[in-house]
Formats: sequence, C-alpha cells, structure tokens
Amino acid sequence: MSTPSSASSARNEVRQVAPKLIELSEMVLYGDVWERPGLSKRDRSLIKVAALTALCRSDQLPVHIERALANGVTREEIGELITHMAFYAGWPAAMTAGRIARKVFDEVRP
Amino acid sequence: MSTPSSASSARNEVRQVAPKLIELSEMVLYGDVWERPGLSKRDRSLIKVAALTALCRSDQLPVHIERALANGVTREEIGELITHMAFYAGWPAAMTAGRIARKVFDEVRP
Amino acid sequence: MSTPSSASSARNEVRQVAPKLIELSEMVLYGDVWERPGLSKRDRSLIKVAALTALCRSDQLPVHIERALANGVTREEIGELITHMAFYAGWPAAMTAGRIARKVFDEVRP
Amino acid sequence: MSTPSSASSARNEVRQVAPKLIELSEMVLYGDVWERPGLSKRDRSLIKVAALTALCRSDQLPVHIERALANGVTREEIGELITHMAFYAGWPAAMTAGRIARKVFDEVRP
Amino acid sequence: MSTPSSASSARNEVRQVAPKLIELSEMVLYGDVWERPGLSKRDRSLIKVAALTALCRSDQLPVHIERALANGVTREEIGELITHMAFYAGWPAAMTAGRIARKVFDEVRP
Amino acid sequence: MSTPSSASSARNEVRQVAPKLIELSEMVLYGDVWERPGLSKRDRSLIKVAALTALCRSDQLPVHIERALANGVTREEIGELITHMAFYAGWPAAMTAGRIARKVFDEVRP
Repeated sequence: MSTPSSASSARNEVRQVAPKLIELSEMVLYGDVWERPGLSKRDRSLIKVAALTALCRSDQLPVHIERALANGVTREEIGELITHMAFYAGWPAAMTAGRIARKVFDEVRP
Repeated sequence: MSTPSSASSARNEVRQVAPKLIELSEMVLYGDVWERPGLSKRDRSLIKVAALTALCRSDQLPVHIERALANGVTREEIGELITHMAFYAGWPAAMTAGRIARKVFDEVRP
Repeated sequence: MSTPSSASSARNEVRQVAPKLIELSEMVLYGDVWERPGLSKRDRSLIKVAALTALCRSDQLPVHIERALANGVTREEIGELITHMAFYAGWPAAMTAGRIARKVFDEVRP
Repeated sequence: MSTPSSASSARNEVRQVAPKLIELSEMVLYGDVWERPGLSKRDRSLIKVAALTALCRSDQLPVHIERALANGVTREEIGELITHMAFYAGWPAAMTAGRIARKVFDEVRP
Repeated sequence: MSTPSSASSARNEVRQVAPKLIELSEMVLYGDVWERPGLSKRDRSLIKVAALTALCRSDQLPVHIERALANGVTREEIGELITHMAFYAGWPAAMTAGRIARKVFDEVRP
Repeated sequence: MSTPSSASSARNEVRQVAPKLIELSEMVLYGDVWERPGLSKRDRSLIKVAALTALCRSDQLPVHIERALANGVTREEIGELITHMAFYAGWPAAMTAGRIARKVFDEVRP
C-alpha cells in the first residue's frame, strides 16, 4: 500500500488515463512548487497531511504520510497533527487518518 | 466490520498513534458530551448518522449505524434518514450510506 | 435574512433560473418526502440542521433553523446539536452554525 | 465492480433498506430529470462525473464512469475532465478518479 | 460582483499575497490546460460550474458562471445543470448556485 | 472582521446559544490541546490555516490567519501555504483564502 515505490506506481497507473495530469504533477507540482524556498519540505508535508486528513482523502493519505516521515516529520508529530485536526475537521476524519497512520507506521517499521 | 467490539478495537488501533485523541474521545466526547441531558442518546445517534452520511465518512459509518440501533433508532428510521439525506447531501452520499446500512443490518441479524 | 417568508422568496428567486428544481422542491421534497410517516417533522428538522451544519451550508442554514423551531425543535436542542456537531464536523463548522443560530434566535424573538 | 449490471445491483442492495430512495431514483432522477431535453445525456454524464470527482465519491464513480462511456463520452474526454478537475478540486481527488477510471477502462475493454 | 473585469481584479487582489499562485493561474491553468483540444471551452465551463456548484464555492461561482455564458453555455443549460446537481450534491448546494446564477443573469442583462 | 478582539467576540456571540461548545473551546481546545508540546504553536497555526483553507471555511479564516501571524507565521509563509493548498484542495479554495488573507494583511498593517 505505501511502499516507497507506490507514489510512482500510482502515477504510472494514472498516466495512461490522464497523461497531462501526471506531466503537471512532475513538472509543476513536484518540479517547481515543492522546490520553492518559501516553506521547508517538512512544513509542506505537515500542511499537506493536514489537508488530506481534513478532506478525508483516505486513498491518498498512506503515500503522503510516508513521504512526510521521509521529509522529517516525526511519528509523534503526525499523531499530534491528527489530534489537532479532530477539532478542525471532526473526529471521524481524525479517526480515519489515525488508522491509516497506524498501518503506515507498522509497514515502514524495519 | 461492525461487530460490537469494533469501536473499541478502532480506538485501540489509533491509541498508539494518537493517544491524546483517544483520551479525549473517552473523557470528553463519550464521558461528557454524550451524557448531557439536552438531547437523548437516540437523537444524538440520529444527528451523528446524518452528519456521517452527509460528509460521506464511509469508514466510520458502520460502527455508528450499529450504535444507533443500540440507542433505539429503528432500521426503518435509518432508511428514512438516508432517503432524507439524499436531498440534502446528494444521491451518491445516500447510496453509499444505504449500502453500508444494508451490510450492518445483515451482520447484526441474529 | 430569515423572516417567515424567506424560504418562499428564495424559491421564487431561483424559479426563474431553474423552474424544474423548484417544482421538484415543492412536489417531491416538501409534497412527498417530508410528509412521510417514517420520521416526525421534528426529527427531519434535526437531521437536516445537522447535515447543513456539517456541510457548512451557511447560506441555507438560517431558514432551516427557523423552520426547525417551527417544527418543535427547541433553542436548547439546537445549541446542543451544534455542540455535538463540533465533534463530527469540526469546531469551525459548529462556530459558524452557532453564529447563524444566534442571529436567527435574535430575529425571531417577539 | 463496474459490470453493466452493477448499477441495478446497487439499487437492489439499497432497496431493502431505503425503498423510497430507490423509487425516487427510478421515477424522478432517471425517469424524469435525465430525460429532460435541456442538456444531452452526454452533457449530463460529463457534469455528473465532474461532480463525483470533485466530491471524491469513490464508491459511486465506477458505475457512473462506465455509464458516461455508454452515453458517448470518450476515454480521452474523461482523462481530460479528470485533469481539469485537478485544478478545481485538488490533485488528490483527481488522482483517485484517475485510478478508478483506469480500472473501469481496463474492465470494459473487450 | 461579476462584471467582466472581476476575474482579473480578483487575481490582482491575490497577486500580492500569493504571486506564484497567480503566475500558475495565468501560465498553467489558463495558458495551457484551458487551451488543450481534448475538451471544448464550453465543456470545460460546464464541468467547472458543476464542480463549483457541488463544492459550494459561492465566492467563486459568479465569475465562472459569467465566463460560462461567454463560452457559449446558455442560461437554460445553467439552470438545467443546477437542477441536475441538486441530485448529486444536494438541494442546498443547488439552491445557493441558483440564487447566484439569478444575480449574475440579472447583472449581465443588457 | 478580524480585529484582535474578534475571536473572543465570536465566542461571546455563540456562548448564549451553545455554552458547552465555548466551555470546551476554552478548557479543552485552547486550555489543553494547543498547550501540548508535541507541535509548536507556529506549526499548529500552519496546519489549522491549511485545514481551514482546504475546507473553505471562509467565515473562520480571518481570525485564524490573524492568530497565525501572532504565532510567528510570516505573511510570505501564508502566501506560500495558500499556493501549496491550491494543488491539494483546488484553485477556488485557494483564491478564496488569498482574498481573505489580503484583507487581513491590509487591516493589521500599522
């Protein structure tokens, strides 16, 4: 579900259906916006996981939680973020994110 | 999916990731708010299932539909609520809730 | 904003743009679904206000809170419902509903 | 998941829980609204898939993408629609729709 | 509210806060995606207004309804689209869009 | 709209309708959760503004953007956050947040 290669495999899956979307992901979103100095990658991961939790995008959360860990967000911070989000997006959204984070943490454990 | 123990098992799953969230669930949400006299437990279940249906929180609906039955909401009322919600949150949200309710009803049947 | 005539005036406003939508509101939603015996009008108002609060439909809340009062939901129950919704849809949605309810309560006061 | 019969099987599943909802689907939504001349079936499918993508109704997307193909929307147009939606509802909603479209396209391939 | 210049004035308002966002709007969204041949401008306007209605983006609807008219979507089609959306995103979202469309239609009337 | 006193005035407005909600805001949300060491106040403000932008809670954004500035988030970071959110919640949500941020920045300028 959230192995290191799953982001690129999702992209390859979608590329055949919507090639321009993937081109924009690679050139604009990851190639340009994520590289801007205005916010650190760690901060960008924090706000992205917050938004995905609030919008309950369960399908996309695993790979982005995993990438947040790679960008220096700790497991404790992700737990704290999810708790904080419960107040801004409701308990059900937070509980769903909590279960997904648990699975990701279990899987990326060495 | 929606056995009597699934709410507490979800809590245990999330507790390790976000212990404060579960503490707040137990002390504040269930220990305080749900026990307030301003609305009956049956009414609280009605509005909770309505909100979960409207927000399309598929992941959280099963356990809360089951708890609604335990709080005295009848199956017919849940069906009527889902029909009502179709007009306020759209047919797709209602159809998703209808399929989930169907599964819960089938599982809790003696 | 939420005078007794505002629901019908909103309908008249929209009728010219989308006459079929208003016909369906009158014939199907209010003429049929709301009249069904499966849930009382008071319960239908409860779940409708819950859904509108959860979905943050600020524009539509005033007239429906007012109608809920007319259908026998008390002001205390609306306050309790809004508090309950904070946990299922987040504090911001509840605070917005709280401010709207306050305005409606002030306006319908004799 | 998205075989030709899955729309009617979903309806049958829900019919037992919420019979009025299915009656309204058949008599009002499909029997009346979809038959109106104001928008072609192809246009109705376009805007429906756009709305389901934007609202991230993953559960309902497969059958409606399949029906869009039957109503004359091409695969290329669905890919373009999903790309367009990325800008109006966010990349995660579009990526989810892209993966679902990919599965539907693979399944309906002769 | 929805005069021909309001889209560019909104952009200028935001440019000072988020200059990159406006650069992306102009170079990528309008300069590239909207110019792609896969969907006509009329179809892109249809699905955009559908998405904005479904997501209840009241703030952004006026200028995009106006642009839809400029792209060849008729008033009758917008009314029909809003009616259709009532079933996919709920009556409140459709009523809000209906009121906004009414205002735009009144303002752009010669 | 977003003067320093507007958060407490909103609370006072809602207190009469939903006193328990405000008690929970003060005792649990601000008195407990915001004081936890797991995330800095600056990080909590970042993820809160991200969530409010993604959920398009226009009504609540002004006071929370203002509080973010007080918690050490810079104007440039808020602009960058809004740009980032365009990709995760769509352009319309970001444009709405951009216009609100602009108003807040103009008002709090000495």
